[in-house]
Amino acid sequence: MSKVGFIGAGKIGQTIAYSAMVSGAVDEAIIYDIIPELPEKYEHELRHAFATKGIKIEVLGTNSLDDVAGMDMVVISAGKPRKPGMSRRDLFVDNAKIMMDLAQKLPQKNPGAIYLMVANPVDMMASVFMKFSKQFTISAGDQVETMRMRSFIAKKLKVPVTRVDGFVGGEHGEDAVVLWSTVKVNREPVEKYNLNKDEVSDYVKKIPGEIIRVIGGTTWGPGTIIADIIKSVSLGENRVMSIATPKEYEGEIIHVSAPTVVGASIGPSLESLLDEKDRWHLNAAMKDFYEVYKENLKQLEQALKA
Amino acid sequence: MSKVGFIGAGKIGQTIAYSAMVSGAVDEAIIYDIIPELPEKYEHELRHAFATKGIKIEVLGTNSLDDVAGMDMVVISAGKPRKPGMSRRDLFVDNAKIMMDLAQKLPQKNPGAIYLMVANPVDMMASVFMKFSKQFTISAGDQVETMRMRSFIAKKLKVPVTRVDGFVGGEHGEDAVVLWSTVKVNREPVEKYNLNKDEVSDYVKKIPGEIIRVIGGTTWGPGTIIADIIKSVSLGENRVMSIATPKEYEGEIIHVSAPTVVGASIGPSLESLLDEKDRWHLNAAMKDFYEVYKENLKQLEQALKA
Amino acid sequence: MSKVGFIGAGKIGQTIAYSAMVSGAVDEAIIYDIIPELPEKYEHELRHAFATKGIKIEVLGTNSLDDVAGMDMVVISAGKPRKPGMSRRDLFVDNAKIMMDLAQKLPQKNPGAIYLMVANPVDMMASVFMKFSKQFTISAGDQVETMRMRSFIAKKLKVPVTRVDGFVGGEHGEDAVVLWSTVKVNREPVEKYNLNKDEVSDYVKKIPGEIIRVIGGTTWGPGTIIADIIKSVSLGENRVMSIATPKEYEGEIIHVSAPTVVGASIGPSLESLLDEKDRWHLNAAMKDFYEVYKENLKQLEQALKA
Amino acid sequence: MSKVGFIGAGKIGQTIAYSAMVSGAVDEAIIYDIIPELPEKYEHELRHAFATKGIKIEVLGTNSLDDVAGMDMVVISAGKPRKPGMSRRDLFVDNAKIMMDLAQKLPQKNPGAIYLMVANPVDMMASVFMKFSKQFTISAGDQVETMRMRSFIAKKLKVPVTRVDGFVGGEHGEDAVVLWSTVKVNREPVEKYNLNKDEVSDYVKKIPGEIIRVIGGTTWGPGTIIADIIKSVSLGENRVMSIATPKEYEGEIIHVSAPTVVGASIGPSLESLLDEKDRWHLNAAMKDFYEVYKENLKQLEQALKA
Repeated sequence: MSKVGFIGAGKIGQTIAYSAMVSGAVDEAIIYDIIPELPEKYEHELRHAFATKGIKIEVLGTNSLDDVAGMDMVVISAGKPRKPGMSRRDLFVDNAKIMMDLAQKLPQKNPGAIYLMVANPVDMMASVFMKFSKQFTISAGDQVETMRMRSFIAKKLKVPVTRVDGFVGGEHGEDAVVLWSTVKVNREPVEKYNLNKDEVSDYVKKIPGEIIRVIGGTTWGPGTIIADIIKSVSLGENRVMSIATPKEYEGEIIHVSAPTVVGASIGPSLESLLDEKDRWHLNAAMKDFYEVYKENLKQLEQALKA
Repeated sequence: MSKVGFIGAGKIGQTIAYSAMVSGAVDEAIIYDIIPELPEKYEHELRHAFATKGIKIEVLGTNSLDDVAGMDMVVISAGKPRKPGMSRRDLFVDNAKIMMDLAQKLPQKNPGAIYLMVANPVDMMASVFMKFSKQFTISAGDQVETMRMRSFIAKKLKVPVTRVDGFVGGEHGEDAVVLWSTVKVNREPVEKYNLNKDEVSDYVKKIPGEIIRVIGGTTWGPGTIIADIIKSVSLGENRVMSIATPKEYEGEIIHVSAPTVVGASIGPSLESLLDEKDRWHLNAAMKDFYEVYKENLKQLEQALKA
Repeated sequence: MSKVGFIGAGKIGQTIAYSAMVSGAVDEAIIYDIIPELPEKYEHELRHAFATKGIKIEVLGTNSLDDVAGMDMVVISAGKPRKPGMSRRDLFVDNAKIMMDLAQKLPQKNPGAIYLMVANPVDMMASVFMKFSKQFTISAGDQVETMRMRSFIAKKLKVPVTRVDGFVGGEHGEDAVVLWSTVKVNREPVEKYNLNKDEVSDYVKKIPGEIIRVIGGTTWGPGTIIADIIKSVSLGENRVMSIATPKEYEGEIIHVSAPTVVGASIGPSLESLLDEKDRWHLNAAMKDFYEVYKENLKQLEQALKA
Repeated sequence: MSKVGFIGAGKIGQTIAYSAMVSGAVDEAIIYDIIPELPEKYEHELRHAFATKGIKIEVLGTNSLDDVAGMDMVVISAGKPRKPGMSRRDLFVDNAKIMMDLAQKLPQKNPGAIYLMVANPVDMMASVFMKFSKQFTISAGDQVETMRMRSFIAKKLKVPVTRVDGFVGGEHGEDAVVLWSTVKVNREPVEKYNLNKDEVSDYVKKIPGEIIRVIGGTTWGPGTIIADIIKSVSLGENRVMSIATPKEYEGEIIHVSAPTVVGASIGPSLESLLDEKDRWHLNAAMKDFYEVYKENLKQLEQALKA
């Protein structure tokens, strides 16, 4: 998979697109943003970067959504960003409207495309986009948390991050949970190491807020990690990543993250291979997600009527 | 994981080591072979290659097995190669003796290392090495067949190989089976395409023999594919690969391939997520493997007494 | 060369460091900035990115310049950024003071290091830093312009950028000149193509201002291009790049860009291989640089007394 | 530049093609060999390797030279290999006949292509091919020796090879000379180090023979190094490499290596920037080359008449 559309050329959209292109995951890219001149100037920046790297990707920055056509994958980062102090769910109604609009426009010109949601609240936006577009949609979900968890444990235990395994699951954000049965260090259960689990969970929850407070937004971490999701699809790598794929729950399609095989096809989910406690967490997350989501959908409905 | 020992510097051993080093999977390498001067001259070749690539891997070619020490991973390709017309199992006794010898010598100096078996018959050699060394051993198994299957389908259906998903399982070699429930093209079940399944299975079985007949051995395919197993372990990529991990069967440790997560830790196997038919095939493969293996072990015992 | 210090973790500093690290040019990195918590939070972002990539670079973000020790290369992007409408030379006095401070502190702890200047006005800052530090200093110079020129011609003539050759020389910024004798397309002199040379020169001069106006700063272009300078040094690639190396002119060390071999050692400059017209331009640039530089040094002296 | 034809799929041809493809230097490849089935089976091997790497290069192995059409670059490794004890020049007549044949057939279908000669005696074969084809031809020349020299010095002085700079020039093979004025270690002239220059020259001369004696041929070194020549052309990297480009000498086109810029266009040569002694060596090499070449051409003429 290689023709990738990027909807949204803000800081995070730019970083994802750059990282995906530089790592060979993209053969052709269309970058759309609503802000005049922004995608076009970003295109220039990319062309300068490609010149030194000898990269031959065809790239177009555009303010016209109609140009996003014939894509194999569409990555959506458009939407209002999370500001310091703001919860991911606060964003629901505003960004859901954007998704409804995109859901109406994108599918026709991009038959068979897979959609990767990045805009927050990311899992709910994936569900909203899929509800209104009927297109196969995945959410970047907890793969960012997964890597933050591994990097923290690695630094804490002074081992290379490449020796730390494991996943974070559930809804992206404050309610994500470390799936402890999956966490291994040097191929051993993490319990063999002197590690405060609460400290790990705390780090995963708080570090994005800390980075936002100081730098104004998280970019390099999520940008690189989400680009690797694109790469694993695009090159058929079959990496297991904690992304959210569509699941039916009480008649609604919802998105809650679990370790999932990401390649030329998406899945299966490894949820059933987790231990009982971790599976309980994921089930609870689905229930919570469903309830909040239904409530949010009602608020959206009201907002649309207003 | 980054310190990698390579036991065997024949054609396939050389290709695996080269491909692994060039793709960033190795920080330090010790290459051993019994043939005088061979590993040392291969080291020179590698140093020349590293000069142009700016690679700073510490590499040593040696005829002394004692130099293989402190490794995180040991890749064993030593053993007699399969000659044209010869079956993989014919090799059992001769190569099992080599494994017993290595099993006695390698573990002491490489505590905590993971062993990757490449020498044929690869799955049985993994079992033999693990039986006598008590070290965690995996077999490259059917990952080579997996990629051959994908490449054939891609060419046949004129789609990029990156759009073809699926795995081959069971014992490496003539008895490997395509796990059809896993095979997808463009995210659709393969049944939606006009594809002769027997032709696919035939290709997977016969292409190595064809290559051996014309070129004298298979190198670039297995070399690159096995190097990617090393890379997925070494960089913690969590790719799902059809390798053989140790399973207990009737009190023996045996090695039969199934899609497995390969990263900083190895596993879980995705066997239980396959459909009934594919699971039946894997069970049958385990039973077959066990029976032949036990018989081969007896032959080995007799040979050792003689 | 592999231990790289980054002085300045603003947008451009972050992009250079990220791009250099992701492309394998750095084994150990120390990132310094004066802004509290900024380098530390950037370090977290990098660690998250490294986790998905399996990168094992040792990285430290710090507010203490003393931590920048034992480096092989130091990249200086610290300094006030160029704001919309501001000329690069306006920045001279303010940023020169910063360079004098760094020149006093960095050399002692980093014996034998090479310094790469990125802060604007980049060539003069290189000269100032070298004047006060006595350390071998190069300026990123016109390598960014070089790639912008190639990317513009490629797009204009609808050829891959990999088919366009040639360099921009002279002082970085408004006075940089396309060295037309070096410009080739498909191995042919550019004159064989229907190309408006003034349009090319105009683009190179004006595109950074355009990007700054819309996005607020140039990052991806210069970040990637300058990271490739680091990479060419670090991996000994011997790429020819239009950077500014120290030259003596009327008793002063000055920095004016010409195509130069960049590898384990820096140089030679290819200036003498250019045609007469291009050499005339470079000589004129040196004279201009010298005069403005001397005047700026006087202003600096006065500012220091005040 | 990206469509690359490979004439010759022997050991060295296979290694060059593999290394070039895996490192991103090739978008489309046609591989020709005269041996039945060989290029086709090699194509299968490549496809298996591409499957694991997610590489989408279009590749064709063929026994029909007519299929080599529309290429941007043609790499010629066809010819009899140098056997243990045999000199490169012994091969002249036999391989010159092959070049004459290729010179007649290749240009028509590959207008504007650049030819890279690899078959031995490599520089003379480049001259022969260019003489009879009138196409722009370069020889891999002494870039292999250059990297062998750097790797030897690095190992001897226990510094990373990335800190060693310098070139070998003159005719490829026994008469190649280290261009000592270019050799630097840690940016210092090599004379500052305790290094026996004769030992260096000896190594460069003798190591290929040593490798051939033990392994039967040199592959990984030249394969990777020559692939990097292709890459530098193909991605427009402008690396300085010691290749042989056509020069007129007494009315003949001859090929003698000197450090040369290799990118979207080839050149300039840095010969005039060398010190007097090194320039003297290169001049002597041209004279020697010319004399032997003329004599060899006479032998060729006689052989053609016979």
